[in-house]
Amino acid sequence: MISKLLGKIKTRKAKVGILGIGYVGSALGQASSSAGFKTLGFDIDRGKIGTLNKQKKSKFTATADTSRLAECEIICICVSTPIHQNKTPNLGFLKRAVGDVTKYLRKGQLIIIESTVGVGMTRNFAKLELELSGLVLGEDFFLAFSPERIDLGNPKFNLGNTPKLVAGADKLSMDLAIEFYRAFVKHLVPVSTLETAEMAKLLENIFRFVNIGLVNELTEYAQAWEVDMNEVVCAASTKPFGFLPHYPSPGIGGHCIPVDPYYLLDDARRKGISLGIINQAGKVNDKRPKKVVQKVWEILKNLSSNTSYRVLLLGVAYKAEVGDTRESPAFKIWKLLENKGIRVSYHDPYILRANGVNSSDLSRKTIIENDLIIIVTGHRAVDYKKIIKCQKPILDTQNVLRGKNYPFLYYL
Amino acid sequence: MISKLLGKIKTRKAKVGILGIGYVGSALGQASSSAGFKTLGFDIDRGKIGTLNKQKKSKFTATADTSRLAECEIICICVSTPIHQNKTPNLGFLKRAVGDVTKYLRKGQLIIIESTVGVGMTRNFAKLELELSGLVLGEDFFLAFSPERIDLGNPKFNLGNTPKLVAGADKLSMDLAIEFYRAFVKHLVPVSTLETAEMAKLLENIFRFVNIGLVNELTEYAQAWEVDMNEVVCAASTKPFGFLPHYPSPGIGGHCIPVDPYYLLDDARRKGISLGIINQAGKVNDKRPKKVVQKVWEILKNLSSNTSYRVLLLGVAYKAEVGDTRESPAFKIWKLLENKGIRVSYHDPYILRANGVNSSDLSRKTIIENDLIIIVTGHRAVDYKKIIKCQKPILDTQNVLRGKNYPFLYYL
Repeated sequence: MISKLLGKIKTRKAKVGILGIGYVGSALGQASSSAGFKTLGFDIDRGKIGTLNKQKKSKFTATADTSRLAECEIICICVSTPIHQNKTPNLGFLKRAVGDVTKYLRKGQLIIIESTVGVGMTRNFAKLELELSGLVLGEDFFLAFSPERIDLGNPKFNLGNTPKLVAGADKLSMDLAIEFYRAFVKHLVPVSTLETAEMAKLLENIFRFVNIGLVNELTEYAQAWEVDMNEVVCAASTKPFGFLPHYPSPGIGGHCIPVDPYYLLDDARRKGISLGIINQAGKVNDKRPKKVVQKVWEILKNLSSNTSYRVLLLGVAYKAEVGDTRESPAFKIWKLLENKGIRVSYHDPYILRANGVNSSDLSRKTIIENDLIIIVTGHRAVDYKKIIKCQKPILDTQNVLRGKNYPFLYYL
Repeated sequence: MISKLLGKIKTRKAKVGILGIGYVGSALGQASSSAGFKTLGFDIDRGKIGTLNKQKKSKFTATADTSRLAECEIICICVSTPIHQNKTPNLGFLKRAVGDVTKYLRKGQLIIIESTVGVGMTRNFAKLELELSGLVLGEDFFLAFSPERIDLGNPKFNLGNTPKLVAGADKLSMDLAIEFYRAFVKHLVPVSTLETAEMAKLLENIFRFVNIGLVNELTEYAQAWEVDMNEVVCAASTKPFGFLPHYPSPGIGGHCIPVDPYYLLDDARRKGISLGIINQAGKVNDKRPKKVVQKVWEILKNLSSNTSYRVLLLGVAYKAEVGDTRESPAFKIWKLLENKGIRVSYHDPYILRANGVNSSDLSRKTIIENDLIIIVTGHRAVDYKKIIKCQKPILDTQNVLRGKNYPFLYYL
């Protein structure tokens, strides 16, 4: 079984199925099809499927028909693993994906999870589920975990040149997964157990979660001294060892940083293990939109005793140069501003519609009719000079205007 | 005044005084005298003074006579700024140093603080104190803060090639300090205010304090999954962006990391600002020696039901390849082990005597008469093979034996 499958991977005769064609699945599908594997992309979004199939890539086909999973020798699960409102893991997409795979599982298939999951989920959830098919792991089918490290908008690192962690449920699964990925990833990092790889991926994002929290926590202290935290971080970052800069921010956004840590926190809580640093970081990051709104209110009150303020949010994407609003702090800020009776509109060159309204043009008229412009996302594509020309006050939560000699500029 | 002093610095005719000749003051004294400044090193340790003066460096003299501060145009304060047992700042050395400088303050002197201090201390303590002399800052004397970044044992970065932050109490102080340091430091980083530079230095060490805490916190969680945290960190560190590895440890040691954060925490508490992440990191790091001892006890109980255990601490220095034991977790571990009735001895090639006993030879006899060898400091100079040859169990808290195929090896 194993040698036949290994041969099919080596000769690129194995067919690859990718469950979930978001930015992770897309990158993987492109890489596997470019490497010579016929690749099927599975998604529930029929609009996306139509668009993808119009692109006429000879080796890549998108489909909603999960029965075609049976055609595939390698199945990669790239679905989203979000959290519920109460910050517990929302395993809906993952369960559905594993359920679909189990339904069509046949001998000679390798299943790989790329989605970020909690420690133990590949073994204690996916493996158990797949075994319900009656097939035997390590004989009939194979299972691996290899977390995605795609960084949207990163000009330097992509799927091919970013080292990739790989862990197998057993030795044969590891060998097969390595053979598959080496077709299009330069540097593979074998990890001894599934749980080690799962935790390594969580650590990567928890590291960011905590360090963003730390700088945000210190920003409040810096304010008490009237010290510019951005300058503090810039100064510290000239230390050439033992430091990695993180800057003050209006909150954390995206599908990873504000989400993944809660997969680990949820499990730790069940185990009765208290993770005070990570918990505190979550609290600090959650408070940021409120801090932004406090600052906005302070600025507006100083500008005029008017009571019908209008503000423009500049950017609602969760990070610069992307058109993705998932978990963006912009919406929390928006809501809190409206709660204070402030009229809110937005401009984002990458997002035409959000929160039920259209993106405003960044016209002179738009700028002038607002009392304050709040830079929430630091898009490079925005014409900041235009705002400065209008002499309109700006709260720059992303430090994109640093060094500009402009008297109406405020920072967090 | 300023142009005369500037000229003296440029022509190396200014005399430099260094208060406190620890590792920071030594490095600075060596650099300034090598750059051509006659340098006086002040210390209270007469033994150290004798040793230094025997080295016959033409431009460097050590002395205990603080009245000679009057000879100096530039005075650098490099004294230790430790904490009390209750973790509040112990400003004894700093107060004494500033007091001595004030006593002999004269026109045309530049005072520079290199010691790590709390935010605001240069302006609100040192400046006020110096002004008690009746001399005027910016006219008669000058004041700057330029935090040391000396990393003991770092083979790559030294005083000369590590960028150095410089902040002046006023523009003239800044100009003078820059002129002085450029004589022997390649890259200077002017910072806009004293407080910004003070906080930047604290951030550098708080960053390490929190990230060490984070990994130690996660180590407890990893143990619940029987996952090797060292492997987790190694795996995560293959991510080529957005991550900086910190490894599990028996606790934090040295004169900076376990100390500096409390200068900021103390001030924040006075200001009523809660810094939950940093506080939690402190709690986690403080608990580490106890966790080590729990692990030791577990190992010993499994090894034998003996009740008169003996262990050897391998390394009591706070970090590898240094002979400094300040704040080393080794002593907390030592005490906790003795509280459990375990007999403790130690071997450290850099520290001949500690805790009232001599360093044991790492002889076969020493190894064999102990039940467990605990690597507390990862000195490269230790012959670990010898212990392995004796088939003696090792608890490696520093992960120095990673990859060794040795059955009696335990990790945190």
